[in-house]
Amino acid sequence: MSVRDEILRANDAYAASFGDKATLALPPARGFAILTCMDARLDPAKYAGLAEGDAHVIRNAGGRASDDAIRSLVISYKLLGTAEWFVVHHTDCGMEFFTNDVIRGLLAQSLDTAELGPDGFTDVGSGPGSDAADDIDFLTIADTEGAVVEDVERIRNHPLVPSRIPVHGFVYDVRSGRLVEVAT
Amino acid sequence: MSVRDEILRANDAYAASFGDKATLALPPARGFAILTCMDARLDPAKYAGLAEGDAHVIRNAGGRASDDAIRSLVISYKLLGTAEWFVVHHTDCGMEFFTNDVIRGLLAQSLDTAELGPDGFTDVGSGPGSDAADDIDFLTIADTEGAVVEDVERIRNHPLVPSRIPVHGFVYDVRSGRLVEVAT
Repeated sequence: MSVRDEILRANDAYAASFGDKATLALPPARGFAILTCMDARLDPAKYAGLAEGDAHVIRNAGGRASDDAIRSLVISYKLLGTAEWFVVHHTDCGMEFFTNDVIRGLLAQSLDTAELGPDGFTDVGSGPGSDAADDIDFLTIADTEGAVVEDVERIRNHPLVPSRIPVHGFVYDVRSGRLVEVAT
Repeated sequence: MSVRDEILRANDAYAASFGDKATLALPPARGFAILTCMDARLDPAKYAGLAEGDAHVIRNAGGRASDDAIRSLVISYKLLGTAEWFVVHHTDCGMEFFTNDVIRGLLAQSLDTAELGPDGFTDVGSGPGSDAADDIDFLTIADTEGAVVEDVERIRNHPLVPSRIPVHGFVYDVRSGRLVEVAT
């Protein structure tokens, strides 16, 4: 079965038992937002105990406080009333295994998937690649806890973020499922 | 109990039954990524049938193909091997209820949460506001299906995205829980 068909079959089962979720309101019922990584091992609804309707969830590579994450957070509080935010990065994040120079070099060689070996990523594809990544900051991470603190500070100090909103910083441990607070 | 404490209590329970999820690998086991909206009513793991470890999940206001979403998708395929992508917007999206001019005007008035009435959003806060939003494109949505098609096309045509990656477009119906395909 194709991935598309697997998703549609799972969705059929979900919709069949949708129940009273049809009446959920647009603004998050519990009034908060979580910014976290796209990593496949993370399920914020499970690790933080969210039901549908509870909270905004923003995810990108690294869970970084990118301009786009801040766009989303501003909409979240200004129009939809969230009043508390959580930044959650995690251990063993792929963003720690490369730099801007590395991924730009790999993309310049080919648009195939690179291989990760003991010496880092190696391009095994055939060209052409693209130099369109040369202007992209991939927001890689050199220090797990430090990146959370940096992102919490960036959000707190943004001119569109009111000082009344608490911004908490956590690292999720992918080996234990546990949240560890690193910025309060 | 504070929201922070509620999250930590839920996390304790999750970690206590973490089991063999400790051995999950970094690359997504099912090799795909979903780009969807931060909306609180959407749980992509539930509506698409994802277990921890299965797929990358990228979320922002609207589920838009922003530069940051494309940064995440490029990392997803180039370094972590995803080979198929799904863009999922939804009905009753908050991004349909305002424009750049509206939110910029509201933010210029105050950094308090606006009220949504029959005539749209009204600012009820006291200043000062900020004009820092004047240069931000909030990526609002005028046409639900059209925005999905636009985002699928933007991703497909991006110079860093290889043509071999299928990009599917869906609208999730918040009243039924059902995915409706709008771009194939």
